[in-house]
Amino acid sequence: MPRGTVLLERLDSAILKENPLGDPTSRDVAVYLPPRYDPMKRYPIVYGIVGYTGTGRSLFNIDPLAEDLASKMDRLIASGKCGPMIIAAPDCFTRVGGNQYVNSSAVGRYEDYLLKEVIPFVESKVRVGRRGIWGKSSGGYGSIIQGMRHPEIFSALADHSGDSVFELCYIQDFAAALAAFRKAGGPKAWLRRFWKQPNRHHSEDHPVLNTLGMAAFYTPNPRSPHMGIDFPFDLKTGEWRPEVWERWRAWDPVNRVARSKAALRRLRLVYIDCGTKDEFNLIWGARTLHAKLGAMGIRHVYEEFEDGHMSITYRYDTSLPLLWRALKA
Amino acid sequence: MPRGTVLLERLDSAILKENPLGDPTSRDVAVYLPPRYDPMKRYPIVYGIVGYTGTGRSLFNIDPLAEDLASKMDRLIASGKCGPMIIAAPDCFTRVGGNQYVNSSAVGRYEDYLLKEVIPFVESKVRVGRRGIWGKSSGGYGSIIQGMRHPEIFSALADHSGDSVFELCYIQDFAAALAAFRKAGGPKAWLRRFWKQPNRHHSEDHPVLNTLGMAAFYTPNPRSPHMGIDFPFDLKTGEWRPEVWERWRAWDPVNRVARSKAALRRLRLVYIDCGTKDEFNLIWGARTLHAKLGAMGIRHVYEEFEDGHMSITYRYDTSLPLLWRALKA
Amino acid sequence: MPRGTVLLERLDSAILKENPLGDPTSRDVAVYLPPRYDPMKRYPIVYGIVGYTGTGRSLFNIDPLAEDLASKMDRLIASGKCGPMIIAAPDCFTRVGGNQYVNSSAVGRYEDYLLKEVIPFVESKVRVGRRGIWGKSSGGYGSIIQGMRHPEIFSALADHSGDSVFELCYIQDFAAALAAFRKAGGPKAWLRRFWKQPNRHHSEDHPVLNTLGMAAFYTPNPRSPHMGIDFPFDLKTGEWRPEVWERWRAWDPVNRVARSKAALRRLRLVYIDCGTKDEFNLIWGARTLHAKLGAMGIRHVYEEFEDGHMSITYRYDTSLPLLWRALKA
Amino acid sequence: MPRGTVLLERLDSAILKENPLGDPTSRDVAVYLPPRYDPMKRYPIVYGIVGYTGTGRSLFNIDPLAEDLASKMDRLIASGKCGPMIIAAPDCFTRVGGNQYVNSSAVGRYEDYLLKEVIPFVESKVRVGRRGIWGKSSGGYGSIIQGMRHPEIFSALADHSGDSVFELCYIQDFAAALAAFRKAGGPKAWLRRFWKQPNRHHSEDHPVLNTLGMAAFYTPNPRSPHMGIDFPFDLKTGEWRPEVWERWRAWDPVNRVARSKAALRRLRLVYIDCGTKDEFNLIWGARTLHAKLGAMGIRHVYEEFEDGHMSITYRYDTSLPLLWRALKA
Repeated sequence: MPRGTVLLERLDSAILKENPLGDPTSRDVAVYLPPRYDPMKRYPIVYGIVGYTGTGRSLFNIDPLAEDLASKMDRLIASGKCGPMIIAAPDCFTRVGGNQYVNSSAVGRYEDYLLKEVIPFVESKVRVGRRGIWGKSSGGYGSIIQGMRHPEIFSALADHSGDSVFELCYIQDFAAALAAFRKAGGPKAWLRRFWKQPNRHHSEDHPVLNTLGMAAFYTPNPRSPHMGIDFPFDLKTGEWRPEVWERWRAWDPVNRVARSKAALRRLRLVYIDCGTKDEFNLIWGARTLHAKLGAMGIRHVYEEFEDGHMSITYRYDTSLPLLWRALKA
Repeated sequence: MPRGTVLLERLDSAILKENPLGDPTSRDVAVYLPPRYDPMKRYPIVYGIVGYTGTGRSLFNIDPLAEDLASKMDRLIASGKCGPMIIAAPDCFTRVGGNQYVNSSAVGRYEDYLLKEVIPFVESKVRVGRRGIWGKSSGGYGSIIQGMRHPEIFSALADHSGDSVFELCYIQDFAAALAAFRKAGGPKAWLRRFWKQPNRHHSEDHPVLNTLGMAAFYTPNPRSPHMGIDFPFDLKTGEWRPEVWERWRAWDPVNRVARSKAALRRLRLVYIDCGTKDEFNLIWGARTLHAKLGAMGIRHVYEEFEDGHMSITYRYDTSLPLLWRALKA
Repeated sequence: MPRGTVLLERLDSAILKENPLGDPTSRDVAVYLPPRYDPMKRYPIVYGIVGYTGTGRSLFNIDPLAEDLASKMDRLIASGKCGPMIIAAPDCFTRVGGNQYVNSSAVGRYEDYLLKEVIPFVESKVRVGRRGIWGKSSGGYGSIIQGMRHPEIFSALADHSGDSVFELCYIQDFAAALAAFRKAGGPKAWLRRFWKQPNRHHSEDHPVLNTLGMAAFYTPNPRSPHMGIDFPFDLKTGEWRPEVWERWRAWDPVNRVARSKAALRRLRLVYIDCGTKDEFNLIWGARTLHAKLGAMGIRHVYEEFEDGHMSITYRYDTSLPLLWRALKA
Repeated sequence: MPRGTVLLERLDSAILKENPLGDPTSRDVAVYLPPRYDPMKRYPIVYGIVGYTGTGRSLFNIDPLAEDLASKMDRLIASGKCGPMIIAAPDCFTRVGGNQYVNSSAVGRYEDYLLKEVIPFVESKVRVGRRGIWGKSSGGYGSIIQGMRHPEIFSALADHSGDSVFELCYIQDFAAALAAFRKAGGPKAWLRRFWKQPNRHHSEDHPVLNTLGMAAFYTPNPRSPHMGIDFPFDLKTGEWRPEVWERWRAWDPVNRVARSKAALRRLRLVYIDCGTKDEFNLIWGARTLHAKLGAMGIRHVYEEFEDGHMSITYRYDTSLPLLWRALKA
């Protein structure tokens, strides 16, 4: 089977220079080029954005129980299911554990970085046709958000198990976050301690990091003493702060589709899927999106599958060929 | 050690005759009488209301790893920590799994039943002085709610690990409820199936029953086709229904203290405690209540202890003597 | 529906006087008498022995999600499924958390207590015909062990989810026990600390208590410095001690059926059931027993049901009528 | 910081041609070369063998919450903690989920493959000095086993959280394996079904795969109808098969140290560590090994750390420099 290549390019960001967390400004972009890549030809390109705690390069990790992305693409192309296509996977990892791919005064201007730096940088290296955006989890979220915000840039989107119906996916983590923040002496102290640990994969840390990260992206507030972030709960007592929660809700994809009708119509592919056993309850977000898109008459591909949130790279066998078909023409 | 007695009395309710769930109208009340009980004397009385899935009699169950309530009272009285006191524990169990001790068109008029039937019935059997209300979990919730609503009836309240800050204690169960309702064909079908099972203690059923029950008490709606209950989520898609949630919030103790200032001032004891590891995250409700009562200048006893939500009957060693002291004078 | 009565009798044991754990010698026996009990008549009697962490009286606890034992018997008798029968449920609880119903120098002579004290005591109060022995979990274990050891005393046995194939049910707890013993400074110190806690239902304690208890019953050794108990692992390093494990294995019902052929043939009922999802993996013990009894040509009733280990009192609807039928004739 | 290189070499195995599972015979070896690698110089070399469900290449996976192996080596070398050293990581993955690095008629001659093919192949590409063997989990097991068997080949070993005291690490998985085999129609059918699933990371599959794999390596038996494997339990009833278990025990490192005294004395480094919260209870194996080595007067490095079994690559910061120091001289 002919094999593609994965290049590692390094991009120096001007936009991230201002980032308040001190995250690096020199970043990797992993770029998959299909077998028999011809630098003189134009290829459809998919921007692959990853889930929380990942980075572009981790898409290409090796796992003997599954298939790495390069092998998957090689196989899909060899079998004719997918045509030759480029995948560019930028590093958007941050000290708060990942990215939601929007601008935030508390984290950095990552939407701008993606659109104004990553894309031009990648497209200075390879010649491309139409662009798609594709990801899972936070990457699925970023894909549908960016697709709705920038149909002039992306012609297709694939949202795998993306964050939505925030009440059901995020709130279940808040009590653990509250307890951890209290114990550490606040979010900032917690995060410092988190990074000092040699092992940052303890399962009890995940809901805390996730809550901190989501608040950092959805409700930054330069006047907040807690890393410039508003939290939807009182950090001392846990009392609910409905006004902060309303600001989270404004970022929930299900609350944005109505106003994004024109953008969604422009897209050549809106792909949404989710596992019926998704541990973050994202199936309900997917069902709500599907119902709303249906009610608005937006053409889209919607699939449910019987699985959870993790280790579902086999779903890309469905989305990648659809992206290629949508982008190639 | 001199031993008290536990009587079992049977009450026929007129109020519950209209209950829409077909729950029994003939109900037990378990009544603890202290050692050397003298029917001619007046005793302080505590109404003990139980947590979800319990009933008054279960307070007196035997557990060799702990102490049953009758032995506890006997011991507290023998040691002089507590004086002679009556405890009356009514049966308020319902087909939706328990009680929040408020009136609901979807379940029954349980506040009325408690105040207008249980109390007169018990007090036709024994002579009493001041009344307290005391309970854990849903029983703690009922105690603080009833104490705030009826200071003319109850002179003291003890709220152990009671439901509050509803966002943190209830929402985490909703996705499981949604999935179960969907699988069963709706809440009504789910409940029927639940009761058909020989074993109703499967842990996966608990969040479903609890969600159904809370909705039944907090947002009954005679026009709803789903057992006359509104749910804070769309039963098909999971979409959030903020207007229903607002109605739940109106029943959250933390949202009721401000308007209950006068009532709370009248009480001779407001006792609140909660475990710092409460699995339903109720510690945050307790902290919020404590902060709000403090800010309002309401005298109260507040304790935290390092434990969870279950098997914490040893906490009654603290509340029962305080209740007795508040009620005796 | 006519209702039976539950008496509480108190027995002073001579045999337990020597018990090394300081457990009480004055013990309750709860005795269920059927509706319309006639003290002049003889009734079949079933000795009900309970699972670990229970006591005879807890069989009669109230649970609104299930049916207490007295109500169950009343109903089975009223429906004609079961005839009038006495159930006597002794208290065999010990400081190591329960009982396996055998003699042990480390705990006490509980087999002797049961056979030589409980039975004569009960039968001095009520007139009985044939005797059965019946229980769940450790009570199931005790039932099959006592049935195999004393067919001259018991004419029928029912073993619900009883301990067997010890490798699969016990060893999974050993690492937790090792860690807890190490942390506490040995089994004795651990047990002291366990009893000092106000809450003894923490789930992390259960495997430790269970391991300690099983070792106390299966491999007592007066010369051991650890409460007179041998453990199947080195308490410092965890190294396996095969010779101690062999002594446990000698108490495994599956390793005793071959030598108990004659006894088992004498029994009028050998009843075994287990849930296919038993959390202690006891289904494999049940299957092994069933296969061995079958191979030996021993008549027995064997049932599997789709459930776990807890909250399965509905299974007594099957065993109690069979016991009655076997004992009445 | 100067960076090393990771080469990917491909080896065609003759020994694996006979492997009964149809696993590939053409295999990757990932080879880390230190910064400023000079092909004319000799370097100490460490053979890195991986845990169950991994492969050599996965050692070099990217994880933004941790440090990949190449970056770790670069950093350790740059800081002077470690000198320049080669790490060769072969692919030993099999259809039964991994490798224990011993010969088995049921899986393949993987010890021979490692010693007679991988080592010569790697050392035909790079010039090496002394050899070490190093790994975690099954790789830790393989390291100590190979170190004890082949001190003439390996001069140092590092065993991180390696399998030992088999009673405590493996038996806890057996009930799940039994249930899964039964449901699937036997181990062979289970394995076929396992590989047909698109997602092979379901947590309920792990104990089953692990049990199957361990049995395949420890108790192969060409006459067994179940993939040529003996299981330590009866596949129908779960009855224990002590004679099979004895054959497992013969492969337990704690049961091999006594007879391996001379070999262990020859090694320049015996390194053992384990987390005190190891989920597979391997801390007890480590403690037993430590005690036995101590009693035999074998010099070794032993460390415990407060963590579990997963995500502990930071432990290599300790072992790799020690390996280098032992091998360089």
